[in-house]
Amino acid sequence: MKKIAILGYGTVGSGVAEVIDTNRTQIEALLGEPIEIKYILDLRDFPGDRYESAVVKDFSVIVNDPEVYLVAETMGGSHPAYDFSLSALKAGKSVVTSNKEVVAKFGKQLLAAAKEHGVRYLFEASVGGGIPIIRPMIDSLAGNRICSVTGILNGTTNYILGEMANGKDFASALSEAQQKGFAEKDPTADVDGVDAKRKICILAAIAFGKIYSEEDVNSVGIREIDLTDTEILRGIGAKIKLIGWVRREENGLSMGVAPCVAPSGHPLYSVDGVYNGILVRANALGDVMFYGSGAGKLPTASAVVSDIMEVFANPEKPQALQFLPGQKNDLCDPDAIPGNYYLRTQLTTDSLDCKEIAPGAYIVHGVSRARLVSAFPDAVIYQVL
Amino acid sequence: MKKIAILGYGTVGSGVAEVIDTNRTQIEALLGEPIEIKYILDLRDFPGDRYESAVVKDFSVIVNDPEVYLVAETMGGSHPAYDFSLSALKAGKSVVTSNKEVVAKFGKQLLAAAKEHGVRYLFEASVGGGIPIIRPMIDSLAGNRICSVTGILNGTTNYILGEMANGKDFASALSEAQQKGFAEKDPTADVDGVDAKRKICILAAIAFGKIYSEEDVNSVGIREIDLTDTEILRGIGAKIKLIGWVRREENGLSMGVAPCVAPSGHPLYSVDGVYNGILVRANALGDVMFYGSGAGKLPTASAVVSDIMEVFANPEKPQALQFLPGQKNDLCDPDAIPGNYYLRTQLTTDSLDCKEIAPGAYIVHGVSRARLVSAFPDAVIYQVL
Repeated sequence: MKKIAILGYGTVGSGVAEVIDTNRTQIEALLGEPIEIKYILDLRDFPGDRYESAVVKDFSVIVNDPEVYLVAETMGGSHPAYDFSLSALKAGKSVVTSNKEVVAKFGKQLLAAAKEHGVRYLFEASVGGGIPIIRPMIDSLAGNRICSVTGILNGTTNYILGEMANGKDFASALSEAQQKGFAEKDPTADVDGVDAKRKICILAAIAFGKIYSEEDVNSVGIREIDLTDTEILRGIGAKIKLIGWVRREENGLSMGVAPCVAPSGHPLYSVDGVYNGILVRANALGDVMFYGSGAGKLPTASAVVSDIMEVFANPEKPQALQFLPGQKNDLCDPDAIPGNYYLRTQLTTDSLDCKEIAPGAYIVHGVSRARLVSAFPDAVIYQVL
Repeated sequence: MKKIAILGYGTVGSGVAEVIDTNRTQIEALLGEPIEIKYILDLRDFPGDRYESAVVKDFSVIVNDPEVYLVAETMGGSHPAYDFSLSALKAGKSVVTSNKEVVAKFGKQLLAAAKEHGVRYLFEASVGGGIPIIRPMIDSLAGNRICSVTGILNGTTNYILGEMANGKDFASALSEAQQKGFAEKDPTADVDGVDAKRKICILAAIAFGKIYSEEDVNSVGIREIDLTDTEILRGIGAKIKLIGWVRREENGLSMGVAPCVAPSGHPLYSVDGVYNGILVRANALGDVMFYGSGAGKLPTASAVVSDIMEVFANPEKPQALQFLPGQKNDLCDPDAIPGNYYLRTQLTTDSLDCKEIAPGAYIVHGVSRARLVSAFPDAVIYQVL
């Protein structure tokens, strides 16, 4: 019998309990022993809930109970989620989490603490919701050198962009997403690209071994996207997607979050609605894409549960993964790298290798964004994938 | 220092050597020790090849050498690949393979032998080439009940179907695929769906625990596809894809390989060229798709190498996976299950709930194929995904 505690009985936390209960027979058969949710940490009461009697308000009850083998942190936010996770690891309990903010900001410390105390810290659910991405990148791509990771990492903005591609303006699309429960009341972290930035920082750390500070990575959100551009792009069978990327370049890693143009042949083009898609390019494997529900109660919970099962199956597996501190100097300026861009300007483009796709709108080849910005100060510019 | 042997120095086998050599620094850093390709089994000589001196023609040299820790079987075909694999496992050497024929036919015996002798038998490369699919299904989806697996599992036929969608007939498309090296001289296993059938048998065994005999599963290939239908379907934004599927139904597992219609919103619709896409539906996770190079030297080799690294990292991991023998009785008749179909017929369709998409061509809802076949003996019929 293995006993666990869930920190935070919100969407994901209650989903973890639901997935365990729904699939208990299979889970326990695979584990070879029963699993019990002994505690749920939440400040609220849940009268009538199946786990009402497991709810505690004081984390020390959990951390001091030697019967608690593992803690699933599904609280969100930096504090006290980080502090509780660290305490649990120091108390010799493995921790699994869906909290990308904590992983991006404190993954380094928590992985080190896990290693020091001979336990595990896993976070499959922190990127791509339920999509298996972190473990496949670590295990299945072990024999590869990863070249780049390019992803639609935020379902909320992907849904909004889909509505905008059909002609709805940003404000109405956002409000619709909020009504449908796809966007938070305060949508800042999603629409300004902060959520996607945390996820690309985590993926970069998996792919290239170093964790960079959020402050060192630029992110551009989707608030400024103009329907003029979505319509022009629809005319050539392309879509604007909010893309997080990290790519090995000559002068360092190029990394960021920005709206980009996905042409119809690109694997990310058809990742629509609240789905996420993560495209990994590796030197032997070539391109591989992982696609699925990037958020949502049960998908995200299912990734947490798979991490719980991994800890139970391999509690002693040495913590090989570490996030080394990344320095801003390792990063190059993405705007300095020549690429293909969508450009809409009132100015003349005679000097450019470009193709006009609509009056005043062009696809430009082999130019850096920096050069375009300085030559066309009036322009709308998006990189083409 | 770990020493390995590669059986078969063809496309995949030489790719394994190439991936190990290209990424040796990273691989050895992750493993914490050097890796050496001590033997390559092949009946041919390879004068001038880097591994010329490692080539042996007699398998007993390998199986009797206690220094050989692991055998990578990349021979193809049932025999002697199965026999060599079994001997290696019995000699206490782990085996990894890209050979879907052996896994589909003899996976049961080889997994049992691995378990008995405390070694491992891994076969990530047998399905989807380099795409991580088998390990993610086992590990990352452990907390889920899998409902269905639906995939484009054969790159050769997917390439041919892409050419046919553009108006080329089957014979010319096949001949072009052969010229480009995407199809074998004898294309039977690919175009008649046998290759896809072996892969869906393996995926079914991973998803549902039982391995069914190839003879118990029906497969229809792509030879009979008429350009009339590809053209009608293109008109409504849909494509014919060769699909392997296994799905839990009320009366058992529905399983097979057949050309099906992928509408433009479906995730498999945009899996083009020689790429593979495998869509898994699970009860908590919902839909997740794995996409990438389904064949090719280095992608497939990279999956073999990731299995080699997994064995080195976790040599003692108990072999939980077993393929129980599946009985034909567990399977239901896919043709008896109501679904949506594409139907082209000269007869009247007054009795059906259907929509005419072109003269004489319809999308029919909620009917079984068996009923359509008996009512429209002249008809062309494809299931719609």
